[in-house]
Amino acid sequence: MSAYQAFDNEKAIEYINTLGGMFPPDAKLSCYEFGDGNLNLVFRITDQHQRSVILKQALPYARCVGESWPLTLDRARIEASALRRHGEVCPDHTVQVLHHDSEQAVTILEDLGHLSILRTELNAGRTFTNLGRDVARYLATTSFYHSDFYLTPGDKKALVQSFTNPQLCAITEELFFDDPYLGSERNHYPEELHGEVDKLRQNAALKLAIARLKQGFLSSPQALLHGDAHSGSLFVDDTTTKFIDPEFAFFGPIGFDLGSFIGNLLLNFCAQHGRISEASKRRDMHTYLLRTIDICLSEFERQWLDLCAQHGSDGTLQVAGYAEHFVRGILQDAIGYCGSEMIRRTIGLAHVSDLDEIEDTEARLRAQRLALEVGQQLILHARSCQSKNACYQLIISVLQ
Amino acid sequence: MSAYQAFDNEKAIEYINTLGGMFPPDAKLSCYEFGDGNLNLVFRITDQHQRSVILKQALPYARCVGESWPLTLDRARIEASALRRHGEVCPDHTVQVLHHDSEQAVTILEDLGHLSILRTELNAGRTFTNLGRDVARYLATTSFYHSDFYLTPGDKKALVQSFTNPQLCAITEELFFDDPYLGSERNHYPEELHGEVDKLRQNAALKLAIARLKQGFLSSPQALLHGDAHSGSLFVDDTTTKFIDPEFAFFGPIGFDLGSFIGNLLLNFCAQHGRISEASKRRDMHTYLLRTIDICLSEFERQWLDLCAQHGSDGTLQVAGYAEHFVRGILQDAIGYCGSEMIRRTIGLAHVSDLDEIEDTEARLRAQRLALEVGQQLILHARSCQSKNACYQLIISVLQ
Repeated sequence: MSAYQAFDNEKAIEYINTLGGMFPPDAKLSCYEFGDGNLNLVFRITDQHQRSVILKQALPYARCVGESWPLTLDRARIEASALRRHGEVCPDHTVQVLHHDSEQAVTILEDLGHLSILRTELNAGRTFTNLGRDVARYLATTSFYHSDFYLTPGDKKALVQSFTNPQLCAITEELFFDDPYLGSERNHYPEELHGEVDKLRQNAALKLAIARLKQGFLSSPQALLHGDAHSGSLFVDDTTTKFIDPEFAFFGPIGFDLGSFIGNLLLNFCAQHGRISEASKRRDMHTYLLRTIDICLSEFERQWLDLCAQHGSDGTLQVAGYAEHFVRGILQDAIGYCGSEMIRRTIGLAHVSDLDEIEDTEARLRAQRLALEVGQQLILHARSCQSKNACYQLIISVLQ
Repeated sequence: MSAYQAFDNEKAIEYINTLGGMFPPDAKLSCYEFGDGNLNLVFRITDQHQRSVILKQALPYARCVGESWPLTLDRARIEASALRRHGEVCPDHTVQVLHHDSEQAVTILEDLGHLSILRTELNAGRTFTNLGRDVARYLATTSFYHSDFYLTPGDKKALVQSFTNPQLCAITEELFFDDPYLGSERNHYPEELHGEVDKLRQNAALKLAIARLKQGFLSSPQALLHGDAHSGSLFVDDTTTKFIDPEFAFFGPIGFDLGSFIGNLLLNFCAQHGRISEASKRRDMHTYLLRTIDICLSEFERQWLDLCAQHGSDGTLQVAGYAEHFVRGILQDAIGYCGSEMIRRTIGLAHVSDLDEIEDTEARLRAQRLALEVGQQLILHARSCQSKNACYQLIISVLQ
């Protein structure tokens, strides 16, 4: 095989066989495709002993966004490279890359099929004790080791060049920061929310804060981000937490990933009002989600400062108090990006099942209104948070 | 000619002749080299009618920094590209590129020999009415048209890649932000200043502010900067103001250029205490320098906001008040970078003749002490300046 061609099951098996090394020579392989088909093909290839790998192949278009939205196959290179770099510093929480082929836009990954997607589990009311700590560790470790505090300026500049990801970034730039506030045909939300959406578009302070967040997304290459760190990009079980799918990886503001993750927990928080009818169970789930956010913020801060103290290599940035100042900025950014994630997932193009699959229409609307309101309040007050505790207290206060 | 070779006078003429188009076919060319020879060769090539051009060729090392400091010839490409891009949006204040050849690291430029280098003129106490306005126009125009407010995100990302300039940026990163505060063999200053330098290195708040400025230099690709906008990079006469030599061009914080320029005016301000003995003449020069800074800050702000209002293309960044917020940030950055320029030019590797050529030792020391003190105060208080006027008032107050 040479020029790119989209695989079917047979081609996927042929590719694995030609490549060699993934299975024993006598392996009898079977294969099925189970991706959602919007951006990528995803095949599971299994031998007669139930050993398996995942073969992911990028498609040259973005069906979910629209035919006119071109999507370079280069995102497969970026995704595999990001996984490798993140995996090098945080193997425990990064899916393992077994092979990558940029020409075919193919990446072979360890099969995490024994785990579950976090979003599905949270929607079902299931909880994971280590989640906050593990995600904090992934985000702190992967960002620190790709920041100015650790990399030489020359190495960082080369990486920033290599992870320049204009097409995928454009999706975020437009869906996250433009569409909800300027209006767009891509938005969709029930008629009953028109009033809330109009109000949001007339909120001058909110739009000013969004401009600031967008500018940060455009021009703050602080570290190599995952770029899409929502609860659909996480495989979990009781002892394991693994990030997948960093096609949106680029050098951006560290708070973006942290905010995306927390935003998705808060979307689930809002959704549980319409999901769990029993008050005490709902309270337990709410308590779990808030506790996870609290742990995530605390552990992120602690680990970032620890890494900086132990492995920081830039003498000037190592001065007393600067890492603390920098992390405070990350947390403020995170609260802002968290709020914008909540808004765009409620009224923009790409929704979350947490909210959309609430069966009762009124309950769904109430949850959506809550998500919009919480999102706005977080965006408006993010920069007043002078500490990790202040961030958490803001979250608590806007949920009440 | 194919592989790179450093020119002598004959080779320079041969190159011009082979290239063609620079002079009439019957031109009789003469040539002499007049660069300082540290980084580049600079030839003036003149015909029998006194028409002339400048041929600038990069050398593959930086003698002034040390043999061990490698300097890629690619900086010639970056310099010529930056001049072309800046010249496209601000031809009045950018030296014109007539030809560029990346392989030979050669750029042919219009000859500005009828003008004078600003630093030399200021040192002689000469003034230029349009200077503040012209520099503001250059800095506002070139930065606006290379910012997120004007460029599409995709175009900007491609330009950021193309203007990645690790080796030249490393010089600034180390000489500007590391050496003066951490100590370095490259620093040099008279023994009498040891006390001041020690104090500066023990000033925790100062070092915190420097860390922030360095981080901004490393990771804020706001626009395509000149990168070395001091008074030695400006050709002037009574009606003309032209920037030359942007080898340090890269996408960085806009306030860096503005701060470098103002910092050099303030270094000259400090130096005039030891240069002009007659009090009224010195007062006039001081008044001129401050008036120029005031005009430069005001005009920069006014022109940036005008450009944004008229040509801003990003709907989200166009919201009411955001450009004002952004420009306020640029001005705060500028005050900080201005202060760090003053310090590094006084005790770091690369000094300015404004100070160093003051003949009287005591007068020179007083001027150097003033520069160090003013630099520190500007760095420490930069972020408290909530307006252009506050920036200017801070400058006035620290000079008293």
